[in-house]
Formats: sequence, C-alpha cells, structure tokens
Amino acid sequence: MENKLFYVFGSGLIAMLFAFFKTSWINKQDEGSDRMKKIGKSISEGAMAFLKAEYRILSVFVVVVACLLAFAANSQGDSWLISVSFLVGAFASALAGFLGMKVATKANNRTTNAAQDGLAKALNVAFTGGSVMGLSVVGLGVLGVSGLFITYDSLGVFSDTSKLIQALTGFSLGASSIALFARVGGGIYTKAADVGADLVGKVEAGIPEDHPLNPATIADNVGDNVGDVAGMGADLFESYVGAIIGSMVLGYALGIEFVMLPLYIAGSGILVSILGTFMVSVKEGGSPQKALNIGEFGSSAVMVIVMYFLITSILPSNQMGVFYATLIGLSSGLGIGLITEHYTGTGTKPVKSVSDQSVTGAATNIIAGLGVGMQSTAIPTLIIAAAIIGAYSFAGLYGIAMAALGMLANTGIQLAVDAYGPISDNAGGIAEMAELPAEVRERTDKLDAVGNTTAAIGKGFAIGSAALTTLALFASFRSVVEMKTGQPLLIDITNPWVMGGLFVGGMLPFVFSSMAMGAVGRAAMSMIEEVRRQFKDIPELKAALEVLNKGDESTWSDSDKKTYNAGLDKAEHGKCVEISTQSAIKEMMLPGLLAVLTPVLVGWLFGPEALGGLLAGVTVCGVLMAIFQSNAGGAWDNAKKMIEEGVTINGENYGKGSDPHKAAVVGDTVGDPFKDTSGPSLNILIKLMSVVSLVMAPFLF
Amino acid sequence: MENKLFYVFGSGLIAMLFAFFKTSWINKQDEGSDRMKKIGKSISEGAMAFLKAEYRILSVFVVVVACLLAFAANSQGDSWLISVSFLVGAFASALAGFLGMKVATKANNRTTNAAQDGLAKALNVAFTGGSVMGLSVVGLGVLGVSGLFITYDSLGVFSDTSKLIQALTGFSLGASSIALFARVGGGIYTKAADVGADLVGKVEAGIPEDHPLNPATIADNVGDNVGDVAGMGADLFESYVGAIIGSMVLGYALGIEFVMLPLYIAGSGILVSILGTFMVSVKEGGSPQKALNIGEFGSSAVMVIVMYFLITSILPSNQMGVFYATLIGLSSGLGIGLITEHYTGTGTKPVKSVSDQSVTGAATNIIAGLGVGMQSTAIPTLIIAAAIIGAYSFAGLYGIAMAALGMLANTGIQLAVDAYGPISDNAGGIAEMAELPAEVRERTDKLDAVGNTTAAIGKGFAIGSAALTTLALFASFRSVVEMKTGQPLLIDITNPWVMGGLFVGGMLPFVFSSMAMGAVGRAAMSMIEEVRRQFKDIPELKAALEVLNKGDESTWSDSDKKTYNAGLDKAEHGKCVEISTQSAIKEMMLPGLLAVLTPVLVGWLFGPEALGGLLAGVTVCGVLMAIFQSNAGGAWDNAKKMIEEGVTINGENYGKGSDPHKAAVVGDTVGDPFKDTSGPSLNILIKLMSVVSLVMAPFLF
Repeated sequence: MENKLFYVFGSGLIAMLFAFFKTSWINKQDEGSDRMKKIGKSISEGAMAFLKAEYRILSVFVVVVACLLAFAANSQGDSWLISVSFLVGAFASALAGFLGMKVATKANNRTTNAAQDGLAKALNVAFTGGSVMGLSVVGLGVLGVSGLFITYDSLGVFSDTSKLIQALTGFSLGASSIALFARVGGGIYTKAADVGADLVGKVEAGIPEDHPLNPATIADNVGDNVGDVAGMGADLFESYVGAIIGSMVLGYALGIEFVMLPLYIAGSGILVSILGTFMVSVKEGGSPQKALNIGEFGSSAVMVIVMYFLITSILPSNQMGVFYATLIGLSSGLGIGLITEHYTGTGTKPVKSVSDQSVTGAATNIIAGLGVGMQSTAIPTLIIAAAIIGAYSFAGLYGIAMAALGMLANTGIQLAVDAYGPISDNAGGIAEMAELPAEVRERTDKLDAVGNTTAAIGKGFAIGSAALTTLALFASFRSVVEMKTGQPLLIDITNPWVMGGLFVGGMLPFVFSSMAMGAVGRAAMSMIEEVRRQFKDIPELKAALEVLNKGDESTWSDSDKKTYNAGLDKAEHGKCVEISTQSAIKEMMLPGLLAVLTPVLVGWLFGPEALGGLLAGVTVCGVLMAIFQSNAGGAWDNAKKMIEEGVTINGENYGKGSDPHKAAVVGDTVGDPFKDTSGPSLNILIKLMSVVSLVMAPFLF
Repeated sequence: MENKLFYVFGSGLIAMLFAFFKTSWINKQDEGSDRMKKIGKSISEGAMAFLKAEYRILSVFVVVVACLLAFAANSQGDSWLISVSFLVGAFASALAGFLGMKVATKANNRTTNAAQDGLAKALNVAFTGGSVMGLSVVGLGVLGVSGLFITYDSLGVFSDTSKLIQALTGFSLGASSIALFARVGGGIYTKAADVGADLVGKVEAGIPEDHPLNPATIADNVGDNVGDVAGMGADLFESYVGAIIGSMVLGYALGIEFVMLPLYIAGSGILVSILGTFMVSVKEGGSPQKALNIGEFGSSAVMVIVMYFLITSILPSNQMGVFYATLIGLSSGLGIGLITEHYTGTGTKPVKSVSDQSVTGAATNIIAGLGVGMQSTAIPTLIIAAAIIGAYSFAGLYGIAMAALGMLANTGIQLAVDAYGPISDNAGGIAEMAELPAEVRERTDKLDAVGNTTAAIGKGFAIGSAALTTLALFASFRSVVEMKTGQPLLIDITNPWVMGGLFVGGMLPFVFSSMAMGAVGRAAMSMIEEVRRQFKDIPELKAALEVLNKGDESTWSDSDKKTYNAGLDKAEHGKCVEISTQSAIKEMMLPGLLAVLTPVLVGWLFGPEALGGLLAGVTVCGVLMAIFQSNAGGAWDNAKKMIEEGVTINGENYGKGSDPHKAAVVGDTVGDPFKDTSGPSLNILIKLMSVVSLVMAPFLF
C-alpha cells in the first residue's frame, strides 16, 4: 500500500472544500428583486422535486442491484464488498448531481442580478456556479475511488490487488447506473417541457419565450437545470471514474505503478483545475471568450507538463509511450471538438447550407440537417480510429485507457466551463420572466454565446472520452474473463456468435434512440394538454393573455395593465413541473433497464464471445449515432438562429417570422430530442454496458 | 468437370428464351391511343437515353478496372482471366438492366391500355413485363457463372479448382460495380425528378401529379423505371450472383459437390420460377393479391422440396444441415418481410402513430417517422443474428452462404412480382398524362396497392439476403487470405486495427447516405430551376396553366380549352430528362468510387485485420441504416396516404389538403431519398465492399 494514496485522497478533500467555499460565496451574492427571488425559488424547488422523485425510484433500483451483486459475489466465493463499492459509486454520483444542481439553481438568478451591473460580474457568478459542479464531480470521484482503495487495503480482505481492483469496479457501475437514469430522465424532462412550452405557448398562444404567463415556463427552466447541468455532470462523472478504474484494471498486468498512476493523475488534475479557475477572470469591457479559453487551454497545457513529470517519475524508465498516449487522447478530444464546432457553429458552411435549404421548405431543411449530421461522423470517427491505433501502439491496451484519462484529467475545469453555459442561459430566462430591461437579457445572451466554442469542445471530449473509456472497459472485461476462465478470449468477427452479437449490439442505439424520442413525444403531449387546460380553465390567465396579444405595452389601458398583472401569478407552474417529473421518471425506466439487463442476459445465455460482439457493436453504432444526432440537432438549432439574426439567400433577405424561419423552426424542433435526449444518452449507454459486463464477468463465466 | 453443368447452362438458356417469348407477347399488345403512344415513346426514349449515358461512363470505368485487374493478376503469376470474368459480369448486369427496362417501358402503357378493359387483363400485362425482368436477371446470372466455369475448365489453364473459383469471383465484382452505379444513379435520377416535379408543379403551380403541363412529368416517370426497375434488377442480380459464388468459394474446402450444389440450386430455381409465373393468373373479378401470393409462396414451397432432393441426392449423406440452413434463410427473409410490412403498411399501428403525430405539425410527424424507422431495426436484426448463428451451427460458414441462396433461389419469380409494382405505378401515371377516364387510374392504383405486401416481402428478402451474402463473401475473403498467406487470419475485436477498421467501416454508411441525399438535393434544385424557367419562358405553357387553375373543366370557355390544348405539347420534357440524366451521372461518381476504393486502400495500407474490421463495420451499420431509412421512408409515405384516404385523430376527421396532410407531405418528402436513394444503395454498398475485398485479397496480402 502506498502512502501517496493519502495525497490523492487529500486532493479530493481539497476539491470539496473549494466547492464548499465557492458555494458560500454564491450564497452571499444578491438575489435581486422579490420577483426574481420568487422565480428562483420556484425553479430551485422544481429541480429539487425532480431529483427527489428520481432518487426515490433509483434508491430502490440501487438497493436491489446491490443485494444481487452481494449475493452473486458471495456465491462465487468473492467478497461482497463489490456491492459496497456499487452503493458508494451510486451515492457519489447522486450527490455530485445534487450539489451541482443546488448551486446552479442558486447561481441562475444571482447571475441575472449581476448582469444588471455588467458582463464581467455576471461571468464571474456564472462561472463560479459551474466550478462548484466541476470540482464536486472530480472531488467525489477521487474521494470515492481512493477512499475505497485505502479502506479495502487496510481491511486486508483481498488475497491480491487484482481482486481489490475488481471490487472497485462496482464503484464505476454505481456511477454509470445513476448517470444513465439521470441523463435519460433529465433529457426527457427538459425536452418535454421545452416542446410543450413552445408548441402551445409560442405557436398557439403567441406569447414570447420564457414569459411568466406560460404555465410551462418554470418547468422549462427546471429542465435546463436537470438536463444540462445534472445530466451532464453525471455523464462526465461516469466517464471520469470509468477512465480511472479502466486504466487501473489494465495496469495491473504491468505492475503496481501502472495501477497507481491514474489515481495520481486524477489527484493532480484536481489541483490543476483549481488553478485553472483562477485563470478565468475578466475585467469589465474585456473578452469573456478569452477568459474562458485561458482557463481551459491554459490548464490543459499545465496538465500536460504535470502528466509528463508524473509518468517519468513514477513509471519505470522507457515508458514515454504512456505519455504519448495521453497526448494522443488530449489532442483527439480537441480535434473532435473543433470538428463539432465546424458542423454546428453559427455561420459555418454546413450550418449555412441547412439555413439555405430552408427556403424550399421544412422538408429540404430536414434533409439537409440529416445530411450534415451523417456527414459529420466522418472525421471524428477517423480521429477515434487513429487514436485507438496510436495509443495502442505506444502503450498497448493501457495506452487506450490512458488516452481517455488524458482527455479527462482536468475534467474539473472543463465541466466548470460546460456548466457555465446553461447557467447563463437560465439567467436569461429569469431576466425575461422577471421582465427586466432588455440589456440584461442581451448580456446573458452574450455570456451564453461565448460559451459555444468551449461547449463544442466539451462535447468533443465527452464523445471521444466515452469511446476510449468504453474500449478500456471492454479490454478490462476481456482480461477479467481470461483471468477467470484461465483461457484466452478470442472475439473473432468470423465467429457467428460474435457476428450475431455485433448486429444486436449495433441495433441497440437505434432502438434506444427511438425509445427516448418516443418518450419525449409522449411527455410533451401531456404537457401540451396541461398548458391548454390552464389557458382554458383559468379565467385570469385567459384575460391576461388577451391583453398581451393586443400588442405593445404602451397601448394598454390601465384596466388592461391591471388584468395583465392579475394574470401574472395565476399560471399553475407547479402542475407543469409535476407532469414533467412524473413523465420523465416513468419513461426513463424501460430504456434504463434495457441497458443494464441486455449485457447480463446476452453474456449469461450466449457466452463471452457473443457479449464481446455485443459490446463492440453497441460502441461503434453508439458513437456514430451520438455524433450524428448531436450534430444534426446542433446544425438545425444554429441554422434557425442564423435566420433569426437575418440571412441573405439567393439575393433575398430573410429574418424572424419569414417562411424559411418557419421551416427552420421545424428543423430545430426535430433536433431538440436528437441533441438533448437521445444523442447524449448514447454516450452513457455504451459506457454502462461495458461496465456492466466488466462487473458481471466473474459471475457469468 | 461435371456434365450436369451443361444442364445448369441450359436452364439459363431456357430463362432467356422464356424472357424473349414474353417480350414478343408484350410487343403484340395494343399500345392504345396516339397520345398514349407518344407518352410511352417519350418515357422509353428518356429511359434509354439515361442508360446510354450511364453505360458510356461505366464502360470507361469497367475497362480501366479490368486492365488493372489483369495487370495485378499477371504480376502475381495468377491468370488474367479474372478480368474476363469481371468484364462478363459487368456486361451481364448491364444487359439485364437494359432488357428489363426495355420491356418495362413497353409494358407501362400497354398495362394502361389493358386497364381500360379490366383489372385481370392489366395484371397480366404488368406481371408479364415484370417476369421478363426477373427471368433475364436469373438467366444471365446462371449463364454467366456456369458458362465461365465450363469455359475455364475446358481451357485447362487453372492448376486446381480453387484457382478457377477465384477467377470466377471477378464475375461477382463486375455485377456489383454496375449494380452500385445503377442503384445510386437511378436513385438520384428518380428522386430529383420526383422532388422537382412535386415542389414546383404541385406546390408552386398547383397542378395535379403526373399532369402533362408539368415539364418534369416525363422525367419523373423515366425515373420510376430507371430507379425502381433497373436499379432493383441490378441489386438482386448482384445478390444472386454473390450468393452463388460466395457459396462456391466456401464449398471448396468441403468437396466438389459443395461447389456444384449452388449452381444446381440456381438452375432448378429458374425452372421453378417459370412454373411460378404460370401460377399467377386471375379471372376478371378475382383477387389479384391472391394470384400474386400463389405465384410467390407456391413457387417457394416447390423450391423447398426441390432443394431437399438436390441436397440429399448430391451431397454426401448426413448433410441435412445444409438443407436446414436454406430453410433458415427462406424463413428469415419471410420474417423480415412481414416485419417490414408491419412498420410500413397502410393502417398498421406504427404508421397510424406517424399520421396521428401529424396533427401537431411537421416536426412531430418527422420525429415519429424517425422513431418508427429506428425501432423497426430491432426484430430484423434479431432475425439476422439468429439466422447467422442457426445456419452456422447447422452447416458452418457454408451454411450462411446457403441461407442466402435459400432466400434467392427463386429470385426469378420474386423479382417478377417486385417489378410488377413500378410497372403498374407508371401505368397509372400514363393514364393521368393521357387524361383517360378516372376508372382507369383507379384500376392501376388497385394493381399497385395489391403489390404492397409482396413488395414488402421482397424488401425483406433484399435486405436479409444482402446481409447473409455479405457475410458469405466476407468469410470467403478470409479463407482466400488464409490460403494466400498460409496463416490463420484472426479478426479479433480487441486488436486495435480491427477496432479502428470497425469504426471507420461503421461510419461509411452514414457518409454514403449523406452523399446520396446531398446529391438528390442538388439534382432536384437544378430540376426546380428548369421547371420554373419553362413556366416563365414558354408563353403557351403559362397560358395553359392559367386556364388549368381556373378550376373545373366544365367552366372553361372554348377559347380556354383552345389555350389549354395549345399548351399541352409545349412543355419541354426532354430538357428535364436531360437534366436528371446529367445530374445523376455526375453525382453517382463520388459515392461509387468511395465504395470501390476504400477497401482496396484500407487493405493495402493497414493489412487484412483492419480490412476485416472495416467490412464487419460497414456490414452491421449498413444493414441497420438501410432498414432504418427504408422503413422510416415507407412509414412516412403510407402515413400520408392514410390521411389522404381520410383518418380520424382525437375525434376529428382529416383528409387531403388538411393541416395534418401538409405536415405528412413534409414527412413523405424527407422519406423519399431515404427509401429510394440512400436506403437501398446501402444494400449494394455492403456487398460491393466485401466482393472488392474478396477479389483483391490475393493481390493485396
């Protein structure tokens, strides 16, 4: 047992302390007017209500799985501690989601309030909110893995380190399980509320986005928090933990230093991330884009140097290959991110082509978006293939795991930048709902927009690291099976069981996406009915709506204003929040169980070769479908925004409300579940299925 | 050398004789009025012009590839006869397309004319037209393979049969190359014309479908012939030949009987198919659906019995496994077909869900269709996986090839039924253009509709046989590499080269689909511009259009009628035909070359493991994307038709011209390139890439 592990544990504690201090700082900021406080409170209560409902269901799932795991381990003569790891992993993931969302919902209206003073101040609040999320995720991840390692080691129950590491894999399984439900549930929630609010509110009733008269507005804002903040946090928590544990499993065959290295890198990554948060600062009038870039890229550069010293000092000599593997990981994440930006960024050629095709109607807009999404799979796939081959030739399977870890080493700061986006976005929504001056909304929009490139790069890291982490877990799975059976496991494609598994695995992302989209459709339908009901049944709301549709506020009579103000508080936001919550919880069950049970059933019924084929199929098709759907959705979204800002197509000018804009809105609505529900869920699906196989391997074969 | 091979060759001759007699019968039928003759002539000339332009380009490609093949074979000390096989294969495929299309364009207006007398007579003409296509395909396939076998054998240039068979694989490559270009080019042609005709004609100018005033109408009808008849014929020719040659290669290791069996099955299949055509007959007032079913299922049943006797009498005893494998193939093709019908047929639950979702607009219609398409991959994939495993456990890799052949044994009659559909469809178009009484169109519509179930089953066979044929070719590829290198070829998924290949291969169907859809978009745009130009620049056309838009013909004045009739002949249909031809030829080049060159480059640069991974990736993702796109397109199409026939959604009735109908039209337009261009092209892509690898293997490794 190495004493240095306590340093790793210590860095986890530092992360949590940092998060704690940043949270108190946020708490101390001014929340703004009473109206803002009230809105903020509704959002925060709605978000917590969702988490509570979600966690209540998941706790049943977690306890059942933990019991089954303990039972299975016991029947094999293995330690039941794997189920303890699982419980701790699930709890840590849930806690990270809870803490991140708690502070994000606090930061929302404090950012709005700060934006009344200026851009720099608002950036500071939003980014601080994001950094709590980021540091909580890495802190809990490192605390969990190193804490369990230290505890199990001191208990002395494991005959050798490989058994100890196998018991640790349960932590990854716990994190993955929570992540899948959080991502799927959050994705369904946010899109159901969004589509419901848009279709009835904007289209049918003609009221602007985020308007307080729309009963679904609060649910929509809650959705942004549970989907984009908590969902993304759980997603990266899973990748982070999976990359650490995957490389530990693969490192075992090479020596104990190779097992410890991932932990040291993760621990130092925390310190580098904290350093990075200090780099993000902007003076009033300065460029927020530059501030974020310095934080993200500056800390990446520092991380490279730190990894170099860690690898050369800890590993035996001649292990520079491991360092190159991490570099390959980092640069391929960056590469995928830049390509993502190219295919989805406002004003780029592919996005322009989608907005151009809107002139001939919704159909050509849709075809163009689908085409862009499919085409955008090309270069990221080549990068991933090159990264796999490159990392492997430098450092074997361990190299693939280290490439993933290279991307994820400074997750703390990356996630801070990622979470900053939805916080700014929500701040804008609150500005709208509180009817603040237009300049406030403009500032928050600007904040949101500067996060776009970094967000695209974040997506690149998410998809790239998911692919590599999955392969690392897959390789770990194979080595565990080989250890257990004492025979080499050949997953040869011409073996019909492997080929059959490959087909079935490849099909899962299609079916999973279809389930997720169907769920969004059904949940949105309930929301639409509820909003329609409120507009019909609540007379004050109806009257206020009529006033609103009269046009500009300056033309309203005094009695109009009174009617309008009387209606403002009458929308029953809570009902909509409840409907979204119930639908999301109900709809996340089936896809979640599909993901967990399929590998167990296939492995049990058809053997490790079929399961290996299944994992390869789900990984390849999952990555492709995730890129396709996310980028198609992103392209549609920004094509719509381009038209809203005014574009010239074939010599004619088009803007908001024009026919091409209407066509682009159709594309954007199709893209919503693509990019916010089914696409990102696939990242988790592939990791979860690999980690389920890894954990279950000793019991199945 | 077995004398029985001459019987096989003889059955090929019988097929061609049968096709010849049926063609003369078609020629003898009455073409109808002068107007119909003129329309028929325009379509037939347009179709031939396309084929001529296409074949001119392809002949350059074919000659270049043949020279390269001869050179490569020579440099390896192998026989250059492989390039002769290639030339013969390409020529046979082109000839089958030519003959099928020639007779189909003849049958079109003769079916229309027959429909003036009654349904049974029209069915007879349309089905006879289809049977010429069907028998030409199998006849030329069998003549080519058995003829080359007999010739090579009598020349005595090959040291052993395995070399002879390897030289035969060139025939499959030739067939595949032509098929890809025909399918892609035809698919682009037909959709460019269709979308162009619809968007300007129907939407902008407000004239009905297939109306003679629309300049793109003839091009649209030509498109149906080159896309649905010639394209599908080339597709099945490729599968048929691929299954025969794939099983010959795999049979070599088992004994010469196993090499010959596929040829005997193919030869007897021709006789059974001819028998099947006699089963299709309907009396006036009888059910055309029943007639087609008796032909297709009756001949399948006979085929099973024939295969049983062939296998038990030719193979050594205890080879019942081979028979079971063919049964597995047949029943899985049937199963996939029934599932296809479930997901795309009018009135089924999934299609109803798409039409229901049209009430909330185009976006929800699109989401629902994408969801149905993705979901529809589930059961076919499970069937394919089960078929692979089942056929393999009964008869090894040879069993997988025989399962494919089991599906394709009576391709003659299956293709006859398939080609009957577009012939009836076009007959309806001609009825419209010739302004015949409405009852004629009703009869042809009825004919077209009864072909739906059989067409769905045909699609099931196409996709199922493509998957299995590809695997057979893939297995042949591996055995050729092993023979050449003298070492076992392990394509283990955990080998990073294999995994990299898997990712890149999986990506190809996405990029290929994106290219195909982009090509349709560009080609349709040129068509739209041309139609707009004609409406603007040709005064007689413009005037006639204005009359048409006045409304019902009975309200027209005499001068209106005169103006209208004067405009009827003024649309420059030939220009539109030319534009579609030029665009299709131009746009098919890049995707075609991508398919041919990728496996050669990957194999050459990265070795057989990477190429194996590539083939597995392209096969799995290709099958999935093909099912997804074809079925989503089919569901959108029939959801639109359901609304046109009148549906009740949430208690309200909707029909043609309603808002949900407009939403469904958007879905149908998105689905068009999905189901008629990119989807079906993928079937060929996967086969072509496997056969390229198989043929090139001895030169690459």
